[in-house]
Amino acid sequence: MDGTNRTMTIDLNADLGEGFGRWELTDDDALLTCVTSANVACGFHAGDPLTMRRVCESAAARGVTVGAQVSYRDLAGFGRRAMDVPAQELAAEVAYQIGALDLFARAAGTRVAYVKPHGALYNRCVRDTGQAAAVVEGVRLARAAPTSATAGSPARGLPVLGLPGSALHAAASEAGLPVVAEAFADRGYRPDGTLVPRTEPGALVHDPEQVVRRAVALARDGELTAADGTLLRLRADSLCVHGDTPGAARLARRVREALADAGVTVRAFA
Amino acid sequence: MDGTNRTMTIDLNADLGEGFGRWELTDDDALLTCVTSANVACGFHAGDPLTMRRVCESAAARGVTVGAQVSYRDLAGFGRRAMDVPAQELAAEVAYQIGALDLFARAAGTRVAYVKPHGALYNRCVRDTGQAAAVVEGVRLARAAPTSATAGSPARGLPVLGLPGSALHAAASEAGLPVVAEAFADRGYRPDGTLVPRTEPGALVHDPEQVVRRAVALARDGELTAADGTLLRLRADSLCVHGDTPGAARLARRVREALADAGVTVRAFA
Amino acid sequence: MDGTNRTMTIDLNADLGEGFGRWELTDDDALLTCVTSANVACGFHAGDPLTMRRVCESAAARGVTVGAQVSYRDLAGFGRRAMDVPAQELAAEVAYQIGALDLFARAAGTRVAYVKPHGALYNRCVRDTGQAAAVVEGVRLARAAPTSATAGSPARGLPVLGLPGSALHAAASEAGLPVVAEAFADRGYRPDGTLVPRTEPGALVHDPEQVVRRAVALARDGELTAADGTLLRLRADSLCVHGDTPGAARLARRVREALADAGVTVRAFA
Amino acid sequence: MDGTNRTMTIDLNADLGEGFGRWELTDDDALLTCVTSANVACGFHAGDPLTMRRVCESAAARGVTVGAQVSYRDLAGFGRRAMDVPAQELAAEVAYQIGALDLFARAAGTRVAYVKPHGALYNRCVRDTGQAAAVVEGVRLARAAPTSATAGSPARGLPVLGLPGSALHAAASEAGLPVVAEAFADRGYRPDGTLVPRTEPGALVHDPEQVVRRAVALARDGELTAADGTLLRLRADSLCVHGDTPGAARLARRVREALADAGVTVRAFA
Repeated sequence: MDGTNRTMTIDLNADLGEGFGRWELTDDDALLTCVTSANVACGFHAGDPLTMRRVCESAAARGVTVGAQVSYRDLAGFGRRAMDVPAQELAAEVAYQIGALDLFARAAGTRVAYVKPHGALYNRCVRDTGQAAAVVEGVRLARAAPTSATAGSPARGLPVLGLPGSALHAAASEAGLPVVAEAFADRGYRPDGTLVPRTEPGALVHDPEQVVRRAVALARDGELTAADGTLLRLRADSLCVHGDTPGAARLARRVREALADAGVTVRAFA
Repeated sequence: MDGTNRTMTIDLNADLGEGFGRWELTDDDALLTCVTSANVACGFHAGDPLTMRRVCESAAARGVTVGAQVSYRDLAGFGRRAMDVPAQELAAEVAYQIGALDLFARAAGTRVAYVKPHGALYNRCVRDTGQAAAVVEGVRLARAAPTSATAGSPARGLPVLGLPGSALHAAASEAGLPVVAEAFADRGYRPDGTLVPRTEPGALVHDPEQVVRRAVALARDGELTAADGTLLRLRADSLCVHGDTPGAARLARRVREALADAGVTVRAFA
Repeated sequence: MDGTNRTMTIDLNADLGEGFGRWELTDDDALLTCVTSANVACGFHAGDPLTMRRVCESAAARGVTVGAQVSYRDLAGFGRRAMDVPAQELAAEVAYQIGALDLFARAAGTRVAYVKPHGALYNRCVRDTGQAAAVVEGVRLARAAPTSATAGSPARGLPVLGLPGSALHAAASEAGLPVVAEAFADRGYRPDGTLVPRTEPGALVHDPEQVVRRAVALARDGELTAADGTLLRLRADSLCVHGDTPGAARLARRVREALADAGVTVRAFA
Repeated sequence: MDGTNRTMTIDLNADLGEGFGRWELTDDDALLTCVTSANVACGFHAGDPLTMRRVCESAAARGVTVGAQVSYRDLAGFGRRAMDVPAQELAAEVAYQIGALDLFARAAGTRVAYVKPHGALYNRCVRDTGQAAAVVEGVRLARAAPTSATAGSPARGLPVLGLPGSALHAAASEAGLPVVAEAFADRGYRPDGTLVPRTEPGALVHDPEQVVRRAVALARDGELTAADGTLLRLRADSLCVHGDTPGAARLARRVREALADAGVTVRAFA
């Protein structure tokens, strides 16, 4: 804590509901005890309807905010294969996913409160202005559905969670949508603030202790050490903790506790 | 017209948006000029998101009511292969489809105003009480989503379009959902009021003149001649005209004109 | 061993390759160290192409026989939802899966040596003569492909693994295909030799010790105790060990060792 | 015919079987009366198993060569959306499709005699050496399946149909696979011999007379006029006629007749 006595807050988000039918992946119940925002898979890369319903019910019961984790239509590739989807199709595919999830969220007493692209779509929307605009158009369709996804804030639309400086955030801002800046404690960064690609060394931070320290530095100090040692200044509204690896929930719990110990309030942004 | 001077009205519904991606099937624009209710495919047996969006926009622009044509998840079989889907899964699959379509309907300025099962699910729900209850549970999830699909009628839920006397209607009524009685001018009926199965002779009425005459008899007089010549008394709130055959839109137009000539008002039930 | 000095042999089969893309399910490498026949998922209920390739390579390297585990087209339901697939479609779907797997088997130096339906299709084919005949027709398409799936036995066709007395075995025999009788050490049986449905008590034998004992009694003595205590006489060419539960591979290993201890030779039937 | 008395021959290929379940697209029977090679869809962008079986039977009955039209896994996009599929996955996906089709081809008394990528995969493999190599690896898996897809030519593998000068052809040649040079009478060319992209003017030649003239010039003279008027010299083993537009079969028939009139023998390359 510094002398300014500012209340520090941050959101913790994780991907949830990423099984499909017989297959399970994320430990949803455990993660829901640690995170404040749940990026719920909507059926295009993962997430069958029954799982979507159950995750929404669990999230609502625990007061965790529900977000739509929208993806390319690619179950076989788990949404990790970039696709050249024409803008009109992509916008409609994004909207379809938001609408489906929103029904389950509302039936559970909450609503879809933000949108986060998944996997290859997330990465593509860092620089691809066309696809970024298409995703935003899909989010705006939800906004245009007045009594549906934006009950509480008719004048705005759903916030878009993404990388600061991304084409996605630029498109969202231009469309008048709120943007939420995300950072990753377990990913390597380049000196320019972008992520080290997964195909390169240093893409992932494997040591849990280091992940915890980086999370605190990010949330409390707005600082992160890049892969080359450069000290970066980063503003983050939300920290992403990964949920699809063994021990993910345990690490998420440690991150949350370390943040509390450091005087950071963990609270949903939405 | 009889001497009682009663205003006769009926709804005309057709299946729309039953293409998928590159593949087209229904002549949506032509059908939207004749029908008053559009059963829009929601992606499980047909209906890609972009088509769903466009059909909703066209329907809204023409004042045609939008309904969710929900189906088993079976693109390869066009939803015509009955499936033993467990009740919980089926309920969630139905809700998923309604939610996705509702977003497009609302973005177009309207909303999903009813639900009609498609193909094998429709047929299964005539007698299968378990699946009928599951479909109704799916519809009720939309009902439970207060500001979403039931904005105008929070106390009720979405009407369910189906065969009078079906297990689906029984389950819907029990759950407090409105039911809408459907009849088919181009299908053969048995003396007990059920449809002649498609695998038997007399299942379809092929002669357009006969279809038109049957439509008028149904709408104006509540009468229909069964395959064996028996004269049936049937109450129908909505007549289904098929949209997936060549000439379908032309026949639908003739049915509508004949109804008008007979003094029947064609108007959406919803 | 009894005094007749007969060599007792049995096959051990398990379902393998039942992941899909990002999702894993079966511990394929561990199972391949215990079983003699691998029922490889072919993409319709599970089994992406890369997994199919790898399982075929591992099986071939270990001398494990490869069989096609064919299923309804139902990734969302893992092939566990019975479907009313018309016979012609079902036959073609079965053949499609066999052909796809056979390419990987041959590229690995072996070939598809038998066919076993999966899940709901397996259960349906116990009594449904129409679907049983369709599956057999699909298998015969492979037989009709002379240099392909039946290189070693052009006069016959692929053996069909299934329940003795099933409609599937009847249809296979009538079509001249070899049949292989399967038994389950971990499933409850009724006095008439059929399986206790999974929805009823006694469907599964959970105690590993009991599973091992039943396996030995089946393989060595042709005996199995039904759920009501009746002692059944059952001929089994192959014992199925389940692979999709935690500890499955360990149990399979214990079954194999117990069989060896009891003087039973574990050997592929094909 | 010129004075050299050389026998001019060319193959005519078209995409067939590009429906899916309820949806039809290509007029397969009509096309099979004109073309000598049928690029049969294998289920990833189009082509259900029953259609695959029927097209193989019709092709075999008419003496038309069967080729595997392999695609990205993308029914919703008809294989027209480029995907960043990792090489190992792509190779296995290509092999899977070849294997499935080959079973139907053999059951019909013929075999898969060549491979042609479809849509976005075709375009991507013009320049993307990684994906081109992956496709070739998939084709080589069929080659490695000795009694399967290469019965008649164990020393080689399946020919790869594609653009001369493409990365696909380079990879195929390097792997020892035969290559077949394809040209398009109805597509605009750039002066460097590449196709005008579909998003640019001049991509398609719409006038049937002009298509017919260009086909003859290509087949007889090895000449084609580029979009800017440049006269190109092109060697083509096979001419592609498109099958998915109204009137496609009629145009294909006219092309074939014009070739015959010009003294060109239309004959399968394989």
